[in-house]
Amino acid sequence: MAELLPKLDDSELASIDAWWRANNYLTVGMIYLQANPLLREPLRPDHIKPRLLGHWGTSPGLAFIWAHASRLIKRTGQKCLYVTGPGHGGPSIVGASYLEGTYTPAFPYATQDAEGMLKLFRTFSAPGGIPSHASVTTPGSIHEGGELGYALIHAFGSVFDNPDLLTIAVVGDGEAETGPLEGSWKGISFLNPERDGAVLPVLHLNGGKIAAPTVLARKPREEVTKLFEGHGYEVIEVEGEDTPGMHHRFAEALATAYAKIKDIQDAARTGSWDGTRPVWPMIILRSPKGWTGPKEFEGKKMEGTWRSHQVPLSGVKTDPEHLQQLEAWMRSYNLDELFNEDGSPTDLVKSANPDDPDMTMSGTPYANGGKLMRPLEMPDFRAMAVAVEQRATERVESTRKLGEFMRELYRLNPETFRLFCPDETNSNRLGAVFEASDRTWMEEVTDDDEKLSRNGRVMEVLSEHNTHGWLEAYNLTGRHGLFATYEAFAMVSASQTIQHGKWLQEAGELDWRESIPSLNILLSSTAWRNDHNGFSHQGPGMLQLLLNMGPKVARVYLPPDANSLLWVADHCFRSTDYVNLIVQDKQPQPQWLTMEEAIDHCTRGASVWEWAGNEDQFGPGQPDIVLACAGDIMTMETVAAAEIIKAKLPAMRIRVVNVVNLMTLRRPKDHPQGMSETLFRELFTDTQDVVFAFHGYPGGIHQLMHGRPDADRFRVRGFIEQGTTTTPFDMVVKNRASRYHLVIDAINNAKALPAGADDLKKWCEAQLARHEEYIVEHLEDMPEVRDWTLSEL
Amino acid sequence: MAELLPKLDDSELASIDAWWRANNYLTVGMIYLQANPLLREPLRPDHIKPRLLGHWGTSPGLAFIWAHASRLIKRTGQKCLYVTGPGHGGPSIVGASYLEGTYTPAFPYATQDAEGMLKLFRTFSAPGGIPSHASVTTPGSIHEGGELGYALIHAFGSVFDNPDLLTIAVVGDGEAETGPLEGSWKGISFLNPERDGAVLPVLHLNGGKIAAPTVLARKPREEVTKLFEGHGYEVIEVEGEDTPGMHHRFAEALATAYAKIKDIQDAARTGSWDGTRPVWPMIILRSPKGWTGPKEFEGKKMEGTWRSHQVPLSGVKTDPEHLQQLEAWMRSYNLDELFNEDGSPTDLVKSANPDDPDMTMSGTPYANGGKLMRPLEMPDFRAMAVAVEQRATERVESTRKLGEFMRELYRLNPETFRLFCPDETNSNRLGAVFEASDRTWMEEVTDDDEKLSRNGRVMEVLSEHNTHGWLEAYNLTGRHGLFATYEAFAMVSASQTIQHGKWLQEAGELDWRESIPSLNILLSSTAWRNDHNGFSHQGPGMLQLLLNMGPKVARVYLPPDANSLLWVADHCFRSTDYVNLIVQDKQPQPQWLTMEEAIDHCTRGASVWEWAGNEDQFGPGQPDIVLACAGDIMTMETVAAAEIIKAKLPAMRIRVVNVVNLMTLRRPKDHPQGMSETLFRELFTDTQDVVFAFHGYPGGIHQLMHGRPDADRFRVRGFIEQGTTTTPFDMVVKNRASRYHLVIDAINNAKALPAGADDLKKWCEAQLARHEEYIVEHLEDMPEVRDWTLSEL
Repeated sequence: MAELLPKLDDSELASIDAWWRANNYLTVGMIYLQANPLLREPLRPDHIKPRLLGHWGTSPGLAFIWAHASRLIKRTGQKCLYVTGPGHGGPSIVGASYLEGTYTPAFPYATQDAEGMLKLFRTFSAPGGIPSHASVTTPGSIHEGGELGYALIHAFGSVFDNPDLLTIAVVGDGEAETGPLEGSWKGISFLNPERDGAVLPVLHLNGGKIAAPTVLARKPREEVTKLFEGHGYEVIEVEGEDTPGMHHRFAEALATAYAKIKDIQDAARTGSWDGTRPVWPMIILRSPKGWTGPKEFEGKKMEGTWRSHQVPLSGVKTDPEHLQQLEAWMRSYNLDELFNEDGSPTDLVKSANPDDPDMTMSGTPYANGGKLMRPLEMPDFRAMAVAVEQRATERVESTRKLGEFMRELYRLNPETFRLFCPDETNSNRLGAVFEASDRTWMEEVTDDDEKLSRNGRVMEVLSEHNTHGWLEAYNLTGRHGLFATYEAFAMVSASQTIQHGKWLQEAGELDWRESIPSLNILLSSTAWRNDHNGFSHQGPGMLQLLLNMGPKVARVYLPPDANSLLWVADHCFRSTDYVNLIVQDKQPQPQWLTMEEAIDHCTRGASVWEWAGNEDQFGPGQPDIVLACAGDIMTMETVAAAEIIKAKLPAMRIRVVNVVNLMTLRRPKDHPQGMSETLFRELFTDTQDVVFAFHGYPGGIHQLMHGRPDADRFRVRGFIEQGTTTTPFDMVVKNRASRYHLVIDAINNAKALPAGADDLKKWCEAQLARHEEYIVEHLEDMPEVRDWTLSEL
Repeated sequence: MAELLPKLDDSELASIDAWWRANNYLTVGMIYLQANPLLREPLRPDHIKPRLLGHWGTSPGLAFIWAHASRLIKRTGQKCLYVTGPGHGGPSIVGASYLEGTYTPAFPYATQDAEGMLKLFRTFSAPGGIPSHASVTTPGSIHEGGELGYALIHAFGSVFDNPDLLTIAVVGDGEAETGPLEGSWKGISFLNPERDGAVLPVLHLNGGKIAAPTVLARKPREEVTKLFEGHGYEVIEVEGEDTPGMHHRFAEALATAYAKIKDIQDAARTGSWDGTRPVWPMIILRSPKGWTGPKEFEGKKMEGTWRSHQVPLSGVKTDPEHLQQLEAWMRSYNLDELFNEDGSPTDLVKSANPDDPDMTMSGTPYANGGKLMRPLEMPDFRAMAVAVEQRATERVESTRKLGEFMRELYRLNPETFRLFCPDETNSNRLGAVFEASDRTWMEEVTDDDEKLSRNGRVMEVLSEHNTHGWLEAYNLTGRHGLFATYEAFAMVSASQTIQHGKWLQEAGELDWRESIPSLNILLSSTAWRNDHNGFSHQGPGMLQLLLNMGPKVARVYLPPDANSLLWVADHCFRSTDYVNLIVQDKQPQPQWLTMEEAIDHCTRGASVWEWAGNEDQFGPGQPDIVLACAGDIMTMETVAAAEIIKAKLPAMRIRVVNVVNLMTLRRPKDHPQGMSETLFRELFTDTQDVVFAFHGYPGGIHQLMHGRPDADRFRVRGFIEQGTTTTPFDMVVKNRASRYHLVIDAINNAKALPAGADDLKKWCEAQLARHEEYIVEHLEDMPEVRDWTLSEL
């Protein structure tokens, strides 16, 4: 085993310990002080913040690990990223950045002196300031500490295709209780030591959550060890609270872990790897919650218990004894060794920092991935066009074209593009990517496996949380990708989508955060199909969710055919800082637009499909009704409805509008993609009623239309939570959004009606009645799965 | 160790094996046949379904385990429930119910004869029929097999407070990759052997997902064993494909596991338990995917690989050789032994069933929990009323009252009520429950722990997935409870909420499914507070989600104060078959209504707050503007806005409407709680503009108002995804929903304006400008957290 980190020498010990104490001091200051930052005078009640917020408990442990990781960087030149799992350990990470000199460039008021330190204290958990957890505002963070469970997921996502990176991921024992965290240890089954970097998990067992102990802290120890050995790790344990003992023991643990990692990587990179999945090291650190804080408070044990979780001494503003206890605590860090007269960190403290700010974990460009981002080499999507000589005559699984497009992306970008998908790449018809890359797999491979290998870079694991989160971190470190999943089950990772959207929105307000690739999500087993899977698989919740996301971030595309999808995909892969949601079904579907038409249509985002309406048969004037649609199935029904009207009621003047970029429907003041009122009127008129067939919940269109001229004239059909195991056509009938419903709506809402309208309405009602009989009788005649086609009309 | 199950004797072996073969035959029939169900003639292409759907791979394993569990029931009289984790194993569970005679009462067309069998085959995965996974339509199921990850969670939820129940939970190795599943093994840390039943997990490692192997199937075996030992289980392994060997070995494994469970329970129930968390048994079953199916297909290995996942022989309708292979496969089950001449199961097959239908796993009342449901003993919520002598003078943390109410529920219902909460009971001010019950905890307890014990029944673990899902299954087995979590992080379990709602909706359409208690969800750390936690903690996504859920199921309550909350809680706990969402903040808030007023207000769901408006100062006529509100913070801002108008522009006639039951806003045809148009007009007038301050996204109200008279006159303020670490008041300013914004909106939209309106508007704008300055300057003056009060005005 390589020996890369020697034992801690005395000067390192002194420096690390001083840095740690300085960091702890800053944390306490952030929680309590609004004045007298360096305790130049005895603490008085008016030095104490009016509202005490923050979480002391986990912070000293986080700072301790950081200090030792910095030493590793200094000694080895290893590039490191630090992921802070424990939710509220923000102050220690902010403090680390402050001590490393990377905080001041980001927040110029927080200078490395008494005045800056005070401002740092006062902005912590304060109005207009920073939150109490490591967040988008924290230099060095790619990880929001608010919602728990994703620390390891983000760590793995950061190191894929980053062979030089070591991500140290601290996992809190609270978050270790979450499902997503428990499911993320398996990242090593997808981590290639030759091509990827490494993750070093540090499970920080300090015993308590907000009000109770944690499961891992109280389970029998041999169970805990077995659990992580079972996850495939070599467990290195460090325990205690004594210093300098803990420094020596943790330094040794880190040295052992690092040597093990380098051995694994060296073997893989020099061709001596036998191909079996390595047993990677992890560290279990058992240190007291609230380590170095007050031992007791009002006769109850404080350090080492859940009582240290938040603010240990809450009475400091009113109770002189508590105030004294706080002062003693703060002075116990030996302030004079830590900060100079002007309040700047002493050389002793600073000597613990890596010299090059880019090498610090708070300053590493890996944590500000836009700095490392290279635009994708893009294939020409026009080359994959579907030839549409006559509309809707041939059916194509549109997403297959996206598969071909991504196959080329894999070939052109062998280190910066990946597809992430919970076990559905083939099912979603994206299998062409396997011509360029296998699935990633570090466990055993047998002869019966297909497209599965160590060198694969298609990420499949049956976990929406892992696949979604891996892509987030892949993006956050500057690389590109796509997450593909079932529409209904996209809600499994809904909270991740929301939180990543919030991250992007906040990052957009920080000029030091560079742009990163957009998070691209494809939903291709949609609410309207899954006819054989039934109601549990039917739901457009994710689309609705994007409608309420911040407009700076949310983008929704509903391509009606393959050529439109290619344009949309090309557009999304070139974009930055958005959450791009693409919804399109994987089943064979009619093709409407030539590539040239698709480019024109998608560039506008919404346009009149003249060939689908009949306005060219009339002189100048308004249509009697506008038939609008967004979403592939709804487009089909709308075009079919228009065909019915054209065939059976040709005197009715109709216009068909298709919307591919949903956000264009909003007003420009509500969304940057919103179309002008002029354009809106050109499509939808000022006054005529619109029958709108929508992929999602009808309320979504009402919401988007808010403030548009006479929004009440929009009659929306969409998914109304009716579903079961049935035919595709019955799905649109059940949700009252079939071609026949649309024709009836058109007749009911048109401003003027030609003779024969009533007959057509009756004919549609008869069609629907016939359909009902047909469905009721299905047991007797076991029909072919009924489908929709233009020719059926 | 108790020896409760002897070795399999010859007659049992014959019976179990025959039952298994019969079940496998039925599964194959469901996938392939539309005619000739008993192979009375050679198979022809026209006997084959036009579209082959279903999942063969996992089904024989599920049936195998079922057959042996039935034997356990027969031998011991143990009450068992079977949870089918593997997503698409539906046919085997449907087949089990059919063979046990419980399917025909639920679906009378599926008689136990040739005709009924054919109908069973034809309804499988067919229009109007049943889905391909175990679902709400499957007798014996409390678990939807669509979305994966919740099998063990539901299993644990089913046995809490059900000491006589053993739930056998089959975990698929695909679903075992999900985060929620991995996080659910820890259920044993919360399972009391004295008071609760037992869960027997059977991890079914058959190796493959849809297109690739699974992690657990390919990890080194010693790692797998360690993993589950680390989770706290004793691992019993069974492997193979040989019969009768596998029958003997599995029977022995089951006997060992059951004896172990009984030993643990006996010890706990006879007082000889030492209190340490038991090591519970689990079984790992390694059997081939597609066991007993075609070994090979087109030269590629089929049985034992992912190729058996769905339909092994897909060419049967067109390729005679494939058809022959299918026939040979089906006949290999030795049909004559399994079904009589009329198609009914033979006595040999039936002898494997428990005699009493209630004792079968398909017929157990535990799987149709309404049969076992007892209404809660309800305390009188009026007894906990907050005395409101003068409105808004005193602040109360309203949710504390709910804590007191639930404390009484715990006392009155010591076996049928539980609170489920991810580590936030105290934080959500519900801590009064601890006066009646500790937190549940089977791991070590130390002196520093509080309200934590083996006998506790408050369920806290830092996992939304576990707590939400435990409650679902607690409900599904007929018991009552509440899930409380942060509003923003309710989205972590959003998909569970959706899927449970879909379950309830579908169950409502099956007359054999009895009503069960509603799923009650409380969100009490809301989007509008969390001011110190910042943007990641701020989001009303769950409320929006309920708006799009099926109207038969979704209920949303926004109580404005403590007395309203008490009424709402009482109402929800008495209800059945709904998802009740209650949103109310935990922070101290003004109290508006006496208990009498609250009862009247909440019973209506929405009403005019006359005391808050000024219509009593005017003669008959319409208000100039209606100020409407829903949600506690928005109520505060609206009442404050009204106070401003009354004080500064008394000639403006205003009405204040508060909405506590959000769904009353919908039309009766859209939602059963929707208020009549008459009532709607009484509240909101026909013609006057309405300024609506809403807790959630403004689009939600637009959506609810759809179709109401002149819906365009509603001007909605709500959460527009603006958040950060700031003051509570700044949150409402940032989202443009403060009292000042509401006054400005009122003036801008009122039909008639008295003199002075312009001045008031300017005053409001000045107030907002002052606020902006104040926020910008916060670094200098470090103010107390600014709050809203009526007296501030």
